[in-house]
Amino acid sequence: MSVDSRSRQMSLAAYVMVPTAHHHGAWRHHDADLGFLDAHWWIELARIYERGRFDMLFLPDLLAIPDQAGGYEATVSKGSQGAVQLDPLVTLAAVCAHTTHLGLGITRSVSFHPPYDIARSMATLDHLSGGRAAWNIVTTSMRSAALNFGQPLPERNERYDRGDEVIEACIALWESWAGHALVADKESGVFADPGAVSRPDYQGKWISVRGPLSVPRSPQGRPVLMQAGASERGRRFAARWGEVIFALQHSLPDMQAFYRDIKSRARNEGRDPDQVKILTGVQVVVAETAELAEVKRRELEALIDPVAGLLTLSYQLGIDLSDFPLDDMLEAIDDVPGTRGSLDVVLQGTKAEGLTLREAAVRYATSELTPQIVGDADQVADELERLFVNEGCDGFIVTPGPLPASATDFVDLVVPVLQRRGLFRTEYEGRTLRHTMGLSPL
Amino acid sequence: MSVDSRSRQMSLAAYVMVPTAHHHGAWRHHDADLGFLDAHWWIELARIYERGRFDMLFLPDLLAIPDQAGGYEATVSKGSQGAVQLDPLVTLAAVCAHTTHLGLGITRSVSFHPPYDIARSMATLDHLSGGRAAWNIVTTSMRSAALNFGQPLPERNERYDRGDEVIEACIALWESWAGHALVADKESGVFADPGAVSRPDYQGKWISVRGPLSVPRSPQGRPVLMQAGASERGRRFAARWGEVIFALQHSLPDMQAFYRDIKSRARNEGRDPDQVKILTGVQVVVAETAELAEVKRRELEALIDPVAGLLTLSYQLGIDLSDFPLDDMLEAIDDVPGTRGSLDVVLQGTKAEGLTLREAAVRYATSELTPQIVGDADQVADELERLFVNEGCDGFIVTPGPLPASATDFVDLVVPVLQRRGLFRTEYEGRTLRHTMGLSPL
Repeated sequence: MSVDSRSRQMSLAAYVMVPTAHHHGAWRHHDADLGFLDAHWWIELARIYERGRFDMLFLPDLLAIPDQAGGYEATVSKGSQGAVQLDPLVTLAAVCAHTTHLGLGITRSVSFHPPYDIARSMATLDHLSGGRAAWNIVTTSMRSAALNFGQPLPERNERYDRGDEVIEACIALWESWAGHALVADKESGVFADPGAVSRPDYQGKWISVRGPLSVPRSPQGRPVLMQAGASERGRRFAARWGEVIFALQHSLPDMQAFYRDIKSRARNEGRDPDQVKILTGVQVVVAETAELAEVKRRELEALIDPVAGLLTLSYQLGIDLSDFPLDDMLEAIDDVPGTRGSLDVVLQGTKAEGLTLREAAVRYATSELTPQIVGDADQVADELERLFVNEGCDGFIVTPGPLPASATDFVDLVVPVLQRRGLFRTEYEGRTLRHTMGLSPL
Repeated sequence: MSVDSRSRQMSLAAYVMVPTAHHHGAWRHHDADLGFLDAHWWIELARIYERGRFDMLFLPDLLAIPDQAGGYEATVSKGSQGAVQLDPLVTLAAVCAHTTHLGLGITRSVSFHPPYDIARSMATLDHLSGGRAAWNIVTTSMRSAALNFGQPLPERNERYDRGDEVIEACIALWESWAGHALVADKESGVFADPGAVSRPDYQGKWISVRGPLSVPRSPQGRPVLMQAGASERGRRFAARWGEVIFALQHSLPDMQAFYRDIKSRARNEGRDPDQVKILTGVQVVVAETAELAEVKRRELEALIDPVAGLLTLSYQLGIDLSDFPLDDMLEAIDDVPGTRGSLDVVLQGTKAEGLTLREAAVRYATSELTPQIVGDADQVADELERLFVNEGCDGFIVTPGPLPASATDFVDLVVPVLQRRGLFRTEYEGRTLRHTMGLSPL
């Protein structure tokens, strides 16, 4: 069955941070194996997702330990998000030849990583993995990251403009070797056709890169470009560059609005909206029965320290919530300074219910802003199908609970149901991530 | 037998660049497998060296395609040094879990890689490999690299001073987590002991890094530090920081002078000279018989394009030799501008013999400035033993010919002879690279 003749298929990407991605209780669960400093832990995890025919394993990044509330000390003590952050590039490079089809999604910051270094490392990984590299493009707004890199934090308004230049420079580097440039003819001694290798000489306002890249054109031409812009300027950036857009939305109507907005923006950029895959974040707790899933959900929730949730919420909002009494109602903190957009989203979801800060923190530490889906395999599949067929998304970024057990649960329980329903592939059809995700070759 | 009770043992490191490290004819040889864009090529190579109980596989780096003579076009056309340069970090990360004991030596430039990024990536690799990471510390003097990074080339005199700061900052980051800091206690919910994680707040003249690093202390505490400084300032830098010093010398007397100088400088820095391992470069052609080795040497030499040698010589000297007639005697080019030190070394080795530029270029393209050792296993072992026992070095950086065949030849033919003579380990004794190399744990 060709891709075109069958029904629309969803994409699945796994979103992994250690010790904590979205569910702040997960690392404390008895199912969690905390061996994440060993390569074999990552290899096992990648193989589970590959067995489940996932599109990709995707690693976010933080360039500093969050210290917005209580300093870095509170973050490392509680094991909240960013307490440990390995280099995602090294981590996924280490698993690349232990897998054959799984996409490898790596976060690099356009604010702090040099473009030549980004382009060369991603092209190297794309070669070594046989065409499975994806670059999750982020701008960095953490002041502590800027202090780690000894550079000023780019102005908010400039951050994306500068990012545009970094991406343009990287693309120019990736295009500096034509596909036929590498000759490697032992007889004549011609290694490459010099006429097929060009010098980009990229000159922007902030970024200047001469080139050419020292790496021949890679199997995908360039890595799949991922983006997660949510603000007005971020959405414009995502619609211009993103081939995979990572969305964090509460509910189906929010997802649908985001979906329509990004597809329409992509069209306005002159792009085929089908070539922009929107994946929305979900936090899944699945078990053999609905009752067992609920038991697991409660076990996990009981392991959440509300302070850990507040720490992550504080650094993501850029405000310190640690001084507010945990048992105050949320409206009392309505007039804090800081990043309003995200706070509004948080408040809107919780104030109506009259939650205290403690309760809101626990909710945040459960799934951040994404839906938590709890149930047996059919119930989870029902909800994923509902969000997918109603064009809330083109697929999901699945944030797991305790690892690797939660990955195994999803792959062994949910994936077969999605496959039976014809919503998800049963086999990889090609070798490159572009092929797997239905993105046109370059 | 403990390390102390037996005779002095040599270290062996493999030095690999593709398509060309020192021998510019190697990639054209019928034995060469040019599949170096695939991870499995590197994995096979690493496993050969690990079977041979090598200390490490070491990858140099170039941050631009050399364009000193004839532009980048000449370099890519001839396949001379730097025509392709994959990211060494990604490449060795990809082999790390396919090996168990082999050290992984990665070059990063203190001139262009951000210190936080260096520290985090190397700590990640040290964890994932179980303590086998080494950092080959280089300063960058290539103008074309500066143009790729859109940054000014640091002044020659400042380059090492700035490098000192980068290393100090990295060490401060690696020391920011005490060995006992990571608690990961599921019961209490304490992830790390905040009192055991400190903020370096490193402030230098050029480098500023706040920290802490987001990676707990790695198995080796920090990667093994490698350096190859040759100039006066470079030797001071190497003697201060290098745990492994990579030397390029012509002959035993040159090696001995360098060896004594570095050990004495290390002593003056207050370091134990035995903790500074000096490895000297050799280019080895070995076969079952001396006659077969000579046949192979001639085959390889016949494949050298003298222009390819001139290209590498030009970029390493920082002068363009492409305008001089190839059949002129070398003394005719005695008054070129550029980096005199290295040119003098080249001239001194060849002018006495009345070589033409073409002949000198072929010699350079054979082994650069290092001895070429040709013979059967006993002859090669004899020469290595002579250089080693006479304190020309503590071991060797072996630059191979056609890969992976040349690695296999060395491992299957030369290593067993060195082992029988008690000069080289028959088994790895510990898991970390520090242990393997006889470097004290930190």
